[in-house]
Amino acid sequence: MSSIDWLAFSRALDKIQFIEKPKQVKRLSQDYYHFSPILQDLLADKQAKMIVQPKSEAEVITVVAACVQQNIPLTVRGAGTGNYGQCIPLEGGIVLDMSLMNKVDWFAPGVASVQPGVKLVDIDRVTRPSGWEIRMAPSTYRTATIGGFIGGGSGGIGSVTYGQLRDRGNLRAVRVVTMEDQPQVLELRGDEVYQVAHAYGTNGIITELEIPLAPAYAWAEVIVTFDDFMQAARFGQALGDADGLIKKLVTVFADPIPSYFAAFQDVIPSQSHCAFLMVSEESIAPLQELVREFQGSIVYEKSAEEASRGVAIYEYTWNHTTLHARAIDPNITYLQTLFPGDHDLNLVEHMYRHFGDEVMMHLEFMRVGGRATPAALQLLRYSTPERLQAIIQYHESQGAIIFNPHTYLLEDGGMKQVDVAQLRFKEKVDPYGLMNPGKMRAWQERWAEG
Amino acid sequence: MSSIDWLAFSRALDKIQFIEKPKQVKRLSQDYYHFSPILQDLLADKQAKMIVQPKSEAEVITVVAACVQQNIPLTVRGAGTGNYGQCIPLEGGIVLDMSLMNKVDWFAPGVASVQPGVKLVDIDRVTRPSGWEIRMAPSTYRTATIGGFIGGGSGGIGSVTYGQLRDRGNLRAVRVVTMEDQPQVLELRGDEVYQVAHAYGTNGIITELEIPLAPAYAWAEVIVTFDDFMQAARFGQALGDADGLIKKLVTVFADPIPSYFAAFQDVIPSQSHCAFLMVSEESIAPLQELVREFQGSIVYEKSAEEASRGVAIYEYTWNHTTLHARAIDPNITYLQTLFPGDHDLNLVEHMYRHFGDEVMMHLEFMRVGGRATPAALQLLRYSTPERLQAIIQYHESQGAIIFNPHTYLLEDGGMKQVDVAQLRFKEKVDPYGLMNPGKMRAWQERWAEG
Repeated sequence: MSSIDWLAFSRALDKIQFIEKPKQVKRLSQDYYHFSPILQDLLADKQAKMIVQPKSEAEVITVVAACVQQNIPLTVRGAGTGNYGQCIPLEGGIVLDMSLMNKVDWFAPGVASVQPGVKLVDIDRVTRPSGWEIRMAPSTYRTATIGGFIGGGSGGIGSVTYGQLRDRGNLRAVRVVTMEDQPQVLELRGDEVYQVAHAYGTNGIITELEIPLAPAYAWAEVIVTFDDFMQAARFGQALGDADGLIKKLVTVFADPIPSYFAAFQDVIPSQSHCAFLMVSEESIAPLQELVREFQGSIVYEKSAEEASRGVAIYEYTWNHTTLHARAIDPNITYLQTLFPGDHDLNLVEHMYRHFGDEVMMHLEFMRVGGRATPAALQLLRYSTPERLQAIIQYHESQGAIIFNPHTYLLEDGGMKQVDVAQLRFKEKVDPYGLMNPGKMRAWQERWAEG
Repeated sequence: MSSIDWLAFSRALDKIQFIEKPKQVKRLSQDYYHFSPILQDLLADKQAKMIVQPKSEAEVITVVAACVQQNIPLTVRGAGTGNYGQCIPLEGGIVLDMSLMNKVDWFAPGVASVQPGVKLVDIDRVTRPSGWEIRMAPSTYRTATIGGFIGGGSGGIGSVTYGQLRDRGNLRAVRVVTMEDQPQVLELRGDEVYQVAHAYGTNGIITELEIPLAPAYAWAEVIVTFDDFMQAARFGQALGDADGLIKKLVTVFADPIPSYFAAFQDVIPSQSHCAFLMVSEESIAPLQELVREFQGSIVYEKSAEEASRGVAIYEYTWNHTTLHARAIDPNITYLQTLFPGDHDLNLVEHMYRHFGDEVMMHLEFMRVGGRATPAALQLLRYSTPERLQAIIQYHESQGAIIFNPHTYLLEDGGMKQVDVAQLRFKEKVDPYGLMNPGKMRAWQERWAEG
């Protein structure tokens, strides 16, 4: 790193915007990894030398060529809303902030072509007047970029209908710039996109994405309370399985999770378990019948029009749940779990009873292989790294799948394994290993062996 | 019947339109029961005395009151496209032809209010320009009425996404006229609608329906061929389970069924098994990847615009398959089967191999309880009633559910059991048992016992 001629580099940038002010550089070198007490220790001192902010694919190519010439590591950043340190520059170098490449280039019924730095909410602002919206989004919908979501996300609000980002059809095409002496632009379509998606920017710099759009229903918000957690959970599964009801969000919280939500203290009776739901307005009537069947109580209901103002319930679900809980109790961290095939919720119930208040159950239903399936972002009262590891291991020993949010390594997060094909792709697009170095275990180990 | 004063009855009709010409009366006393060799014999001589064609709910009330006064049986008819004799007047009387009550009263995003005699295609003609369409339809979409579909149908094109008519949310409300001395108009909402839906008009005369609407994608048509039937079937299940692909129709035919389709002889190579599909246009690209995974060949593809002209593939699926096969070989009849929970298709494969060419496999995938599930309308080479019964019994003994299309009795068709609540509802709305008499076994047996 000491041999880098930063002056030559910044001269090569020509008119491309960059930031060197330490305070801003520090801020733009971070994400929400502090959700994890493990990552807090590991990543606290990691920082880029410079933040570069390209406005076009041509500028990206210029930056990349300059980095290759000087052997400068490059870590791509969206809005920095991730939780796994995916955009933390482990080996310094530059952070490539994509937030100025923020246009919706075009859209048609069911499909849009967008730049990576556009915020998810801004895609919908453009497409909704024509009746279309993005299929799924994290709870950071209002701040996150599409590039960051594709680069590190897996699913979210909308996944109860459309499955996960990795499911065929949920990402149509990407354009990527390679990090070679002569950078190339590749367009990947169909199954090929998974060489780049959810790769933390280790396998090419995304400069354009073609994504599917969903019909934009008028989404109502509903909160339902239950006396019994398992009744709430079974209600969630039943709603996920209700083919005649149109839904976007099916979240279930065990008590005491709702007590962390200041905005809903007047709405949710204490010691109740509850479901946070987004359903289409015309699905409210059949939803009421389902609620009655499961002896729930609707305590909150907003039409789509009302939901466009004030508190949005989706900002209490997925990883925002963790955010709100940590605002009250910073000692809380979280897990990410899939209960595969557990439609009878036996494994969910076992974990709920086994860990009691130490691991507070937070279910998010999403479609997996054609079926609504319980996933969880449990809140965890943190004590020691060893105890955290023991909790993870117990889940795995019982058949749950943990996507560990306490690692910054791509493979260990577990959303996806780096396979040989991907390693070969990286050899092609990043021969010098400058893209987000330190994040891909297979690449590190390849060099350790070599 | 001999004591009916038909002159007084027709006088009571006042200006309400009716038909007495024998040829027309005979035609309007029939449906497609001739698909079944069993029903052919049982229903051939059944005929109404008169066809009455009301234009409004007020006229329906007048007709009903006049029927009650003269003790005249009343059988409601839509377009007569059903196959179970649901609108055959077993005890004569009048047929109430609803085809003149054919308006879409209003629609809004996701919901429409329609009269019972409107054709399914005509609902879409009104709503599609605004981006909405009906959620599901039988293959008789262009001729069938919504009232007849709700009165006797179960699902169809669209069910691979939205499930069946009986699923909560797929029918919002109905208005029904009762058959009392003083006919009442009841509005049923939510779960209450199932007291009337799929009751063959034995439980009230539907005069208005509130139905949900689906987003109207641009639906492309695709035919895929396979060398192996089970490969085709597994492809169908995988497409049903593919959450990121938007689909409306997933039909799989075993050879030699495609040989009955004259319109596709140049398209489908002989001795191939094939899938007839409707997917949204932007799902074509990911569909191609799925086809490749299952080693299929796309032999036919029409954009939505092209599909609006010429042959429509949906008119070769569901019960139109039977129609086309019978046009070539009138000795063919059919079964209706659900393979519950058979997502590995073991039971499908067993039946396919067990019966060989005698029972030709025709799968229709539809959502059941949140999961794409194989259903079948197998073509059957008919020999004797005993053999037909043996084939049905073998299916049932192996865990398949047969919805017998060779009976006109509501309960024996098996789509729904008449339970005590429904019997009580009939006692209320049809105290004299004049509504489509002879179709509801529970009612007949009640009188036999009483």
